[in-house]
Order: sequence, then structure tokens, then C-alpha cells
Amino acid sequence: MKNSIGTNVILTLFGESHGDEIGAVLDGMAPGIEVSEAFIAEQLSKRRPQGPTETARVEKDNFRIVSGVFNGFTTGAPICIIIPNENKRSADYEAMRGKARPSHADYTAHIKYCGFEDYRGGGHFSGRITAGIVAAGAIALKALEKKGVRIETSILSCGGGSDVEAEIMSAKNDLDSVGGKVQTVITGLQAGVGEPWFDSLEGVIAKALFAIGGVKGVEFGAGFKFSEMRGSEANDPFCIRDGKICTTTNNNGGINGGISNGMPIVFNTAVKPTPSIAKEQQSVDFITGEECKLEIKGRHDPAIVRRICIVITSLVAIVLCDMLSLKGGTDSLR
Amino acid sequence: MKNSIGTNVILTLFGESHGDEIGAVLDGMAPGIEVSEAFIAEQLSKRRPQGPTETARVEKDNFRIVSGVFNGFTTGAPICIIIPNENKRSADYEAMRGKARPSHADYTAHIKYCGFEDYRGGGHFSGRITAGIVAAGAIALKALEKKGVRIETSILSCGGGSDVEAEIMSAKNDLDSVGGKVQTVITGLQAGVGEPWFDSLEGVIAKALFAIGGVKGVEFGAGFKFSEMRGSEANDPFCIRDGKICTTTNNNGGINGGISNGMPIVFNTAVKPTPSIAKEQQSVDFITGEECKLEIKGRHDPAIVRRICIVITSLVAIVLCDMLSLKGGTDSLR
Amino acid sequence: MKNSIGTNVILTLFGESHGDEIGAVLDGMAPGIEVSEAFIAEQLSKRRPQGPTETARVEKDNFRIVSGVFNGFTTGAPICIIIPNENKRSADYEAMRGKARPSHADYTAHIKYCGFEDYRGGGHFSGRITAGIVAAGAIALKALEKKGVRIETSILSCGGGSDVEAEIMSAKNDLDSVGGKVQTVITGLQAGVGEPWFDSLEGVIAKALFAIGGVKGVEFGAGFKFSEMRGSEANDPFCIRDGKICTTTNNNGGINGGISNGMPIVFNTAVKPTPSIAKEQQSVDFITGEECKLEIKGRHDPAIVRRICIVITSLVAIVLCDMLSLKGGTDSLR
Amino acid sequence: MKNSIGTNVILTLFGESHGDEIGAVLDGMAPGIEVSEAFIAEQLSKRRPQGPTETARVEKDNFRIVSGVFNGFTTGAPICIIIPNENKRSADYEAMRGKARPSHADYTAHIKYCGFEDYRGGGHFSGRITAGIVAAGAIALKALEKKGVRIETSILSCGGGSDVEAEIMSAKNDLDSVGGKVQTVITGLQAGVGEPWFDSLEGVIAKALFAIGGVKGVEFGAGFKFSEMRGSEANDPFCIRDGKICTTTNNNGGINGGISNGMPIVFNTAVKPTPSIAKEQQSVDFITGEECKLEIKGRHDPAIVRRICIVITSLVAIVLCDMLSLKGGTDSLR
Repeated sequence: MKNSIGTNVILTLFGESHGDEIGAVLDGMAPGIEVSEAFIAEQLSKRRPQGPTETARVEKDNFRIVSGVFNGFTTGAPICIIIPNENKRSADYEAMRGKARPSHADYTAHIKYCGFEDYRGGGHFSGRITAGIVAAGAIALKALEKKGVRIETSILSCGGGSDVEAEIMSAKNDLDSVGGKVQTVITGLQAGVGEPWFDSLEGVIAKALFAIGGVKGVEFGAGFKFSEMRGSEANDPFCIRDGKICTTTNNNGGINGGISNGMPIVFNTAVKPTPSIAKEQQSVDFITGEECKLEIKGRHDPAIVRRICIVITSLVAIVLCDMLSLKGGTDSLR
Repeated sequence: MKNSIGTNVILTLFGESHGDEIGAVLDGMAPGIEVSEAFIAEQLSKRRPQGPTETARVEKDNFRIVSGVFNGFTTGAPICIIIPNENKRSADYEAMRGKARPSHADYTAHIKYCGFEDYRGGGHFSGRITAGIVAAGAIALKALEKKGVRIETSILSCGGGSDVEAEIMSAKNDLDSVGGKVQTVITGLQAGVGEPWFDSLEGVIAKALFAIGGVKGVEFGAGFKFSEMRGSEANDPFCIRDGKICTTTNNNGGINGGISNGMPIVFNTAVKPTPSIAKEQQSVDFITGEECKLEIKGRHDPAIVRRICIVITSLVAIVLCDMLSLKGGTDSLR
Repeated sequence: MKNSIGTNVILTLFGESHGDEIGAVLDGMAPGIEVSEAFIAEQLSKRRPQGPTETARVEKDNFRIVSGVFNGFTTGAPICIIIPNENKRSADYEAMRGKARPSHADYTAHIKYCGFEDYRGGGHFSGRITAGIVAAGAIALKALEKKGVRIETSILSCGGGSDVEAEIMSAKNDLDSVGGKVQTVITGLQAGVGEPWFDSLEGVIAKALFAIGGVKGVEFGAGFKFSEMRGSEANDPFCIRDGKICTTTNNNGGINGGISNGMPIVFNTAVKPTPSIAKEQQSVDFITGEECKLEIKGRHDPAIVRRICIVITSLVAIVLCDMLSLKGGTDSLR
Repeated sequence: MKNSIGTNVILTLFGESHGDEIGAVLDGMAPGIEVSEAFIAEQLSKRRPQGPTETARVEKDNFRIVSGVFNGFTTGAPICIIIPNENKRSADYEAMRGKARPSHADYTAHIKYCGFEDYRGGGHFSGRITAGIVAAGAIALKALEKKGVRIETSILSCGGGSDVEAEIMSAKNDLDSVGGKVQTVITGLQAGVGEPWFDSLEGVIAKALFAIGGVKGVEFGAGFKFSEMRGSEANDPFCIRDGKICTTTNNNGGINGGISNGMPIVFNTAVKPTPSIAKEQQSVDFITGEECKLEIKGRHDPAIVRRICIVITSLVAIVLCDMLSLKGGTDSLR
């Protein structure tokens, strides 16, 4: 499936950082979901760089819905959303052609695509493509909201500390970047969603998250802390509250055996420091085959820990719609 | 795909803990891969419980290859491997019917399957089913070995410490269980394997890992440590060694932009404590709808941190064969 | 997907003509469908050779359900059904190794599988494998029956005539075989099933049918007769009957735009003459690379036009369950 | 997959007859395939209506390649092609809202999409969408051409006769439409392409063909004539010609056991008469629920038998690229 994800609700991404347009196709959404262009714009604005802690490359994100929406509602046919790239400076990158930016996909793309990759600004690997995720995700979020399902992603830490802005400004001043950790909480999801083995809720969500550039770890509930725990403290005891079965703790992050148990779904995502830093770096020119020094000019985020939140929320909304659609049928989301 | 994983090389699992047989179908493997029953048996023996730190339910794993192998070689047709269940004591579980074992899939399976689930010993959710993964994985490992690709999974820690046996015996004596962390290293994998977005190498591997019961976190390279790092320390500088492009550090665990870069692939997996503990636990009987106390008799591992290693190695071998097959074609593994 | 078909309800086939066992895995069926072993046996008996017009290789089809059924109902977990091969005479084939039987898969299998194919009796290409389709299809048929959906396949013609038995006996006496045409009618299927483009009901059914050996043509409704018609006679006028929208004719075979319209689904399948004939044939030995004469001994059907009916019905039942499951959700079939 | 087809090379279609733009995403094509905009334009011109036998709605097809092509070559990333709709007259359709055009998808779309379908000009079901198939197919055809594979589709008959133009003009003069039969021949395809059961070459091609509006039958080689034949005349004897294994006849249309045998792949497609005719028709208004008379104004083809040829050729090119890519790997098409 490469650039697509999902079984019954399917997202496909296309575009490059310095192409004219990027976009997404969202297929399989139920007909009759209200689509608000204002809400899509609002969601895109959450992804847009803001203030001194983020990149100066700001895009207007003048998206347009090309198909699949009619009279303000989804039709059930594939929804294509196109977003023009407006603020691109390809010259920034042309000079660096061949010089592999460490931690970036320049070198691996070159090998994979045999030298035919669009290398400008990371090409198809650019974070710019996530705008399509956010636009499509806005429709999925609205569908979920009607079913009482809400998704929120927030910053847990940055550079190991909790004063996120200070950490980022400090890194920026050092011509450096910094990583962070974010947490996502899904509430209102019914018990019984997910499959026993390969379409476990954890597996499906993790696969989606690792698509996002910069994500290098995913843990559910107590996650890596489980490795230090005893069963007697890790196990979530079942109880009855208000006539409903739930658990007194939620170390399992709302998932048992790959299937939601009705508690909030909770997971953390590790985000690596933005690879692009202004500091000089050691690298290799894979065209000449020689070692080289590298100084990345361009315009970059010293941290993506804030901007990634809406991308995660949006992408998880889409895969949840897929899971619900497989369970309840295409029309169950309407 | 539910109980199947893969695109060109596809594994399907079936069976229940207390059924007569469990098994796996591995479809899409190249023809001409030598199949050694002795090697499969040896791999299965690594998964089998051993010594005082593990469960007393020992299975003989008298597997048989039903299809897809002829004259000692894969034919290219689907390989079905059947493994009889021999040492089962259904009575251990019959009495507990309805009492949700905390951290287990009893309750979620009951909801998902509307009360029709085979509840004996975890049914289809049982770790017993992983024997099929190991048997099929043995064939994948042999195919990879011929291409110079090796996969090793080893224990990093258990209960937070490094003296694994002591931690497990201590938990066992306390009628408890304990979690751990394991690390997998893949060497010899060429650069250029993986896809930019949804079939990133990280995403594909993570989805596979979360299929395994007990896995609650996956991190690649520096993983969650990235969240505390600066870009200047996190980025892996490229260099030339022996005429080959590589990196001086490997914080990215051999993957950039979802694609292998030729360095070893490294990832850690968080394993939660075995849910089944002999200590009394608080729970709910989801048939009567009342809270209850629970004491799990049966025979259980106080930790699965050792046994899970071969399951991870085997499953990762299968998804790697799939990735290589998509890149180089069905026959490229021969 | 190779040896699997379906998205939410998935059938996987495995086995070879002369292996110990063949079988099928049916994954994604709703939990709670009653499974009658007697009904499966009855369906298998319809596929079994009967009387003088069919092969003398009669199998007992002593199937067993290995997984996914508990206390007489589907559990929702994958259903594996195993059927032993009992009446095999490999020696019949050993002598013919390398001699490509015309119209058979011997040569193409040899090329595709690089010489590693199990060549005995057609190996994985054998019609024997369709027993797995019939066994799994019996469960799907029962699920559909509860929803009021019925599928019947019957013989339209054989050797161009309608006296099927006479045509077959005549061919048999000539050491020859003969083709035929069968028609399938699905009643009770609601309007709205199918997708606009690539998962059209026609496309999904046709793909399934062409999996069956001997099928070389599929047409829906008026099918190839459409090519000679005018729109004014071909179009099915809509009308109201008993308060329901239907059509006065059914040239479209119940499908408009790839989607069921509530009328019976009708399609015809062209079945070629059994490739195996006792007459001497011209061929090539692909091992020696020389032309050769070929006389096929073994035991063969002079026509498969009767036996194929239950295979078509069963396979179509499975893909219909998949379509309904995608539309209404996994549980909608219960 | 709904509006997508393929496993390793995947086509996704989107758009509606009266939207601003339609388009296609082609994912998984090898990097390094030369892309000629002139050739794409030329292919699109073959699909465009021509002369008095075809509709007066002529589109300029001013396509643009949005992604996946860089410096004149495919990059390996998804290729999105957008084609504006220019010559649309929505008013033609607005008045007919609710009146089900016989043989069209109006009614089935209404049921499937619960009344939210874009009903103008057939919406997403419109033949207009096939422009995206032709544009994407042009790239696939070029890739195949380099491998020596050629695909040609030509008209076999129209209205039962061979004087196609006369049949169409006669139908047009009668305010009617007429069906036809077309034949596709693929030459240069190596032996060994296709899978034994569900990804048989016949099944994969048929599934693709039935996606195209108007296709109601597909037969390979002798197809439905097989039903009247004896095995001794139907079987294609193998022989050696110029040192190569081939067959003296080609009744099987180049496919044995679902796999190409090196002979030309030959199949016929039945095309029904264009549903839209100017003659008055009996129908139902599915909004009022009453029977009604219907006269279709608009601009329509009296036959699509010529225009469908390039659509079939293009779509088959894409699925062949997928099959070759699965066999030989993503890069094998370069």
C-alpha cells in the first residue's frame, strides 16, 4: 500500500515539498458526514508554524476539495483535497544536492529511488505532506465527534524538561534542535474495537504513527515502564462503576489483547530532534562519494513537538474511522 | 487482514489454546528455499518453556508441514504448518468462565465476539498461537540467512534489572510475574528497504510486534531517549568506511525516512508482566455482571521475556521477507 | 494476496493434489453463525464425482474443523478446515514428469516456480483444492441463508447441447472431454451492495470465478448478447411492483454501476473441456526440451460442468459475505 | 480498496462528472520511467469523442502532473494527475434529479450513498473518470513498451455486425444506442506471470475490466466457445518453434492455470449499449416513489465501443505493471 493506509477507510498521500501542489485522497468515508471548510482551515492552522520557536516557512494552506463532497456533505465517493505549495525556495536546496543531511531521508531516498528522487526540500519525504493528513483528518474527526469519540494529543516533555518554550528557544539559540514526547488520549471509544493478532489496535495505531517523520518510539499505557513492573501492580483490576465494567487503573492504555476495553486509549510518541540544524555537520556527498562538511541553511523548526500533535491526532482519527468502519460497516460512521 | 500480515509474503495464523491443533499458512515465499524440519524443531524448542523460571505446560510441538514444501524445498505455493496441542487441561479454565483475568483479553474478546469466543485458556488470543509464528519464521530466517541478513533478539532487562533469572525467581516466589525489555538487531540488510509513509520499515515492524501478546512499546534506535536529545547529538553523521557510506553513530537504528540506510536495524520492545499471576486479584464476572475475586490456577510463565525473543525474531524475519520480496520480486529471496 | 481472496471476510487455500491434506482458512466471519458438520458434508458430497460421467477418483472428504468453531458456532476467529487426501496414486504422474499436459498448468507452474513445483497431479493447481472452497463456502451459505440470500448454480448447456449426460458419455466414449456453460442466480440480495469502480460486484465475482480451473468466460445478465443489442431493448425499465422499485426486465443481471439493484444477480460462466483426455496428444517435454507424444492415464472427469456448480456457488457465497461485511460491518452477518 | 486497484502498483481514481477536476493517483511505479506529456495528451485524445458517431461533449483534457515526476522521469513517489472538467452543463441533469435512468447507476448510487450522491451527470460513476485511467495508463504503457510488452484493443463487432460506423449512425438516427464487442491482445509478455488461484491473470484482468462502465462480459481465448468444444480441439498442443516452447493454437488466450504461457494474451470484452438514449423510456422517480416517463436530453455517445478501447488498454497496462512488479520487484519495470 506504500503511500496509503487503511482497509475500508483509506488515506492516500501524494506530493513533494517543492511541487506545485500536495494532497490527499480519503476513500471509504460514509456518505452524509458534514464537511466544514472552516473547520479544515482551523485544523490546518494548528499545524502551521507559529512564533519564534518555529520555522519561518509559513504556508497559507489554501486547500480545495476536488471531489467526494457535495452540498456540504461527504458523498461516499473518494474525497480528494489539494493544497498548493506557495512559499518554496528551491534554490536553498539545489546547492546541497548530493550532500546527505544526517538523520534525513536524502541518502535512503537516493538509494531507494536510484537517483530519480525529487531531492528538493526532502521531496516526498517532507513534513509538508502532513498537511494532507490534517486536512483529511478534519473530516474523520468530525465523524468521530458525532459518535462521542474524541482525540487529543499534547506535549509531555521537550528536551527532557517540561518548559517546552524555554527548551526550544535554547536549542534555537545554539543553532540546534531538540526532541520531545507527546501523549495522545482517545476517549469515548466503545469496547470491542481491534483484532486479535495483526490488526491489533496497538499495531494499527503504531503503524500509522511511524509514518510521520521524526517518530521513533510508541508506547501504550505504561509502555516501557511495564518492563520494570510486577504483574500485581501492572494488571488493571476490573470493577463496576455506574453499572459499567471498567478498570481501576489504566496501565494497559485501554487495550487488552489488541482490542479496546472501553477505558481511554492512551499512548506516548517519541519525537526526535528536527534533523535540520544550522550547526556544521559531518556528512557524505553521495554523488561524489566523498566525505564533506554540511551547513543547512533553509528555514527549519528547532522542534516539531508542537506541530506534530495535530498530525498525530488527525492520522489516528483516520485509522480509527477505518477500524470502526470494519466493525460496524461503511455507514456506521454517519 | 485481521489474522494475516504481509503484502507479497503473507502469514496467516489460526487456532486456539485448547483446540486440537493450531497452525500457520505462509504464502508467497519464493520457490527453492531449502526447508529443514530439524531447524524448525530447533527454533520451536527455543520457544518452549525451560527450567524453573517458566511454565510447566510443555508442548512437544510435533509440527507437520501440510503443503508448499516438496522434496525438501519450498514450491512457491502456500506453506501450511500444523502443530497439535497436546498438553491441555481445559478444566483449569472452565471454572473461571466469565471471570475476566485482568490485563488479559477475556473481557474484550467477550465483547468483540458477542459471547461466542472460545474462552478456554485465552482461546485464539493465547500465546500458544505464537508457535505457528516460530515454525513459519524458521523458513523465513533460512531465506534471509542466504542473503546475509541475520536477526537476533536478546534480553536487555527484566523487572528493571539485568539479573534476569533472579528477578523472575523472586517474582515467582511472590506468586507474581514480571516484565522486561528485549532488543532486536538486524544485520546485513541492504540500504533502500522500506517505504516513505505508511509502509515505513518502522511502521511495518511495529505493527508486527504489537501483534504479540504482552508487547506494549516499540522504539527504534535511541527511541524514547531522542525526546531528551539535541539534534547535534542525535543526528548520525555520514562517513565513508572501507569505501562504503555508513554513519558514525546509529541513533536512528538504521532507518532514515522509513527506509533502511545499511546500518544495523536496532529496536527495543517493552514486554509487560505476564497477566496470569497466582495472587488473588480484583475483577468482574462479565456474565453475572458482578465484581469478584480471582485466583488463577493453571500453569503460567512468571515472565515471557525469554520466550518472546524467538517469537519476535521469527515474526520480523517474515515481514522482512515481505519487504524484500516487494522490492526485489517474489524470486529475489531464492 | 495470491491464494487468498477478500477484504473483511478472507478465504485462504492451501494444499496439493498428492499431499497428505488440503485445506482452507476462512477469516473474518461473524461470530455466532451456526456450523453444521452434516451440512458441510452434504455440500462436499455435491462436489464429489458421481456415476459413469465422472472420474473414478472418489475422495471421502473426511474434513475436520481445526479452529474458529466452538460449541457449534463460529467464534469470530479464523476457521481452518483440513481435508485429508486419501485416494491418490502418485505413480500415475511420476512417469509423466516434464511432459506438459496441454491446457494444464504443468508448463506455466514449472516456469513460475523455477522447477520446484509439486508436479504430482497438478499439485497446488489441482481441482482437488476446490474441496476447501466448498467446505468453507458451506458456512458462508448458511450465514447468507439467514439473511434471505440464496445462490444456485445450474448447468445451461454442455458441448453446445442441453442433454448433458449424453454429451458427456459421448465424449467419454471418444476418449475425449467436453466443455459447458453454467448459470448462477443470487436471490434476496439487497440493493446497494458493491462499489463504483474497482470493487464492482461484477469485478469481485469475476475475479473469484476465474480462480477456478477451467473457467474462461464470465458474463452478467445479457452479457455478450449486449454487444448485439440496442439501448432501447437492453435498458431495464424501472417500475414499482408491490410498492418496491424493481425493473421489468433484467438484462443487467441485477447490477447497475457495479452495485446491486435489488433484482436477482444473474451470471453465466464458460467452462472449458477438461484438459486431461485419454487421446494421444502432441506436446513438449520441458525438461528435455523436446517435442513428445502424450497419453494421459490417471482418472479424470470427461466434464466438470456438474461438479463446478457447487464450487461456484460456494465461492460466490464467500465473496458475498465479504461484500456484505464491508457494507454492514463484521457482525452484520450474524 | 473500492476506488483503487493493485498491490504493488496501485491506481486510485477520484472525481465527479460535474466537479471542477477529476484525477488519478498512480503509486508504486518504478523510478526512472520517462514521462512524456505529449504521449499522455495523445493517449487522452484517443479517448476523446470524435466525429458524428460520438457525443458533442468534448473536453480539452488539460491535465497536469501534480507529483511523482521530476525532470521528466518518474521518481518512485505517487504520481497524481489532475484533469479539469471544462465542458459541463449541470442544468441538463438538475431537472432529472430523482428520475432513475435505466441501466445507469442513478438508483443504485442513491441507495448505496443514502441520498448524498453527487447526481449530476452520473457523478463519480461517470465515464468521464476514465480519463484518469488513460492518463495514468500512458505511463504504464511506456514502461511496458521498454520491456517489449504491447497491448492493443480493437473493435470486433458493433450491433452484431462489422460495419461499425453504419451501425452507430443507424442507432443514432433512431434516437437509440448500440453495444459491441472489443478484443485485446497483449504481446511480448513473458511466461510465468500470474498466480494459481485468486490472483490468476484472468481474474486480475477481469476485475479491472468490470470496473469500466458498460462492460458486462469478459472471455479469454476461445471463451464461451469452449462450452461447445471437445478437449481434443480445445487443448493447445505444445510445440517447439525457433527453440522456444509455444503452442500451435491459442484457445487458452495465453493463460494456463492463471499464469501466462508466453503466447499472446487474448481476451474479448462485451460492451453494452450506452444507457443514455434520447427515446422516451419508462422509469421511476425514486424521490417521489412514483413511476414516470423519461427523456434524456444531454449529449451522449450512441456507442462507446470505440472510446472504450483506449480505456481498456490503459487499465490493463496498469494491472500488468502491478503483476510484473510483484514478480520481479518494484524496480523491474525501469
